[in-house]
Amino acid sequence: MLAASCGLLLTACGDVTGNNQTTTTDTSTSEKAKATTSQLSKDYYRNVINDGQYKVSQSRGVSLSLNSGYNIKAFETGLMNLSHSEFPTDTYYFQEGQQLDAETISKWIKRSSGDNPEPDLTVSDPEGLNPVDNGELEPDKRAPKYLSQILEQNYMVKDGDNFKLAGISIGLALNSVDYYQKVQYGAEFKTDIQRANLEAEGKKMANEIVARLRKMEGLGNIPITVGLFEQTPKDSLAGGVFFSEGVSKDGAATVANWKDINEKKVIFPRTDGETSNETTSFENFKSQVQSFFPNLNGVTAEATYSGDQLIKMKATVTTQFYGQSEIIALTQHVSDNASKYLPPNIPIEISINSIDGMEAFLNRDSGEKEFQSHVFD
Amino acid sequence: MLAASCGLLLTACGDVTGNNQTTTTDTSTSEKAKATTSQLSKDYYRNVINDGQYKVSQSRGVSLSLNSGYNIKAFETGLMNLSHSEFPTDTYYFQEGQQLDAETISKWIKRSSGDNPEPDLTVSDPEGLNPVDNGELEPDKRAPKYLSQILEQNYMVKDGDNFKLAGISIGLALNSVDYYQKVQYGAEFKTDIQRANLEAEGKKMANEIVARLRKMEGLGNIPITVGLFEQTPKDSLAGGVFFSEGVSKDGAATVANWKDINEKKVIFPRTDGETSNETTSFENFKSQVQSFFPNLNGVTAEATYSGDQLIKMKATVTTQFYGQSEIIALTQHVSDNASKYLPPNIPIEISINSIDGMEAFLNRDSGEKEFQSHVFD
Repeated sequence: MLAASCGLLLTACGDVTGNNQTTTTDTSTSEKAKATTSQLSKDYYRNVINDGQYKVSQSRGVSLSLNSGYNIKAFETGLMNLSHSEFPTDTYYFQEGQQLDAETISKWIKRSSGDNPEPDLTVSDPEGLNPVDNGELEPDKRAPKYLSQILEQNYMVKDGDNFKLAGISIGLALNSVDYYQKVQYGAEFKTDIQRANLEAEGKKMANEIVARLRKMEGLGNIPITVGLFEQTPKDSLAGGVFFSEGVSKDGAATVANWKDINEKKVIFPRTDGETSNETTSFENFKSQVQSFFPNLNGVTAEATYSGDQLIKMKATVTTQFYGQSEIIALTQHVSDNASKYLPPNIPIEISINSIDGMEAFLNRDSGEKEFQSHVFD
Repeated sequence: MLAASCGLLLTACGDVTGNNQTTTTDTSTSEKAKATTSQLSKDYYRNVINDGQYKVSQSRGVSLSLNSGYNIKAFETGLMNLSHSEFPTDTYYFQEGQQLDAETISKWIKRSSGDNPEPDLTVSDPEGLNPVDNGELEPDKRAPKYLSQILEQNYMVKDGDNFKLAGISIGLALNSVDYYQKVQYGAEFKTDIQRANLEAEGKKMANEIVARLRKMEGLGNIPITVGLFEQTPKDSLAGGVFFSEGVSKDGAATVANWKDINEKKVIFPRTDGETSNETTSFENFKSQVQSFFPNLNGVTAEATYSGDQLIKMKATVTTQFYGQSEIIALTQHVSDNASKYLPPNIPIEISINSIDGMEAFLNRDSGEKEFQSHVFD
């Protein structure tokens, strides 16, 4: 019992860096001892672990089907971030989604089979949330598939010596581009989808998902946060963003309080010719870094905006590996020029990569002046 | 001039994290303005840069021929580290080797052509430092090639508004295993070489190299540090180590003051069955991390010893990527168990990798208690 109280005390103190592992024994059931990980950042949740094992999702790996690794990571961490307001990281614990299994999700993201009494269940399902196939094949005439994937996250609280489910977050990954074939194994075609349509369709689907969850055992009254995520096309170097979030409380069967999230991600150098203070800063940084060696270094960045405000930058320097002393010199040069040219006060990550992988990494957190760096040897 | 004095002042103050770029203009010759990078760690040297460009080595990329990436990095950073004592990082600046070009080094690492008046210059050279081919083909009868590669580093000091060469370090990469073919394009055979032989042959070669350098213009009186490096075999997960260092001062044509460096690198888990406090600690850490997911995580480490003392550990956790929230949980779990089980007080690096590259990174510097971590998203 002492360990458990210490755990709660540390939580209340907001200690996020300490190694505050707690171990409690569940006396009410036959479950094994439960513990939690520490919390390495106030953006992260402590994780519930059972007997040294992590409880993976009932739909483990479904987000691997998204258009790119950038989308997968943006979808998962984005849903975690927008869960912070309903389920603060200092009192809630994270567990992977345990309510929706892979089979259920696989059905829900199919097309609806409508009133077809003998549907082809490989492409449609009575429970499918995407529109009924209208038989059209042209990009602007067919009914596109809006919903690409569903992600469930569970948020737990302490309950005596145990943990109980206290919140669910549901992310809907929606297609800005729906890829399809006109014939099986045929060429790939695309239907572009407007944000306004994604939003309208996404909100309808979110209500339906919440209504279905409400009927499941034990979920009648659990707060459910829902986020709508627009994934970027397959060839984009940027990940997608959440553009709308809502919540269902007090057992409501629909989502209320929808709020717009006005975020966007832009790749530098911009290819659309648009210029701003940030693009000029980036171009200065890029030209200093690019020409450091006789061979050119590649320099790109993903800039995240909230409204018109730049809030985060992730830069990637790609170089050819000729030796470790060159990597050290380049890292020091990148640090100097990032401090000199890149925008102040926002968090910035810079990775230096060769064909062998990451060679060095620089990081400046929000509010810091100096970059922290690490050269891998 | 002000900028230059500030630079020197900062150096004297031992400020290693600041962005102390200095720019001086060389008025005595027509060379372009010179600057230096900042110094991100007291282990690193500031680099001389000319007009935003890094001066690459005259033998750029020669160390890429070593047996593995582990050896390349250990060879280069090792030579830099053993240069610290003669050429301290607070007063000396680093420049890549400018004295020995790739062609010269290529000749020197060949076999000696001995007194053959018409040698095959693709395999031997009058200037070759490896033994004359004795015609034997069996592993224990042939004369193996001891010397695999030569690395030159230059150490500069401020000279008014300019930088001048003030020290040279030469690293000799020596073969613990010499790989060879009996016939061209044939199977690969190996000759194992004892450390004692490498040391004796390496010291002779070092003297010859120093004697040759002394005859080159401007190098008659420059201090030359020499390090003997034993590279590990191609299939080793550990990099090699420097095992002997010496110095040639006051224009001497030989190396004096040879000192043994009693370092070794060991891969955990050990395959030789040897056990120690460290192997037990590592096994505990490994078993906690390995079984965190239903699929096994791979856990290995490179432990560096000085004598019998563990001085550094680099661990690698290999996992399968199912999603970002699993990576965050694993990182927190690794941090907890590294703090709990791995040896205290030594620097430890842990990278968490999937097939897509590095997913997260944890680092604890010497003397720190907590791990710093970064999850890449």
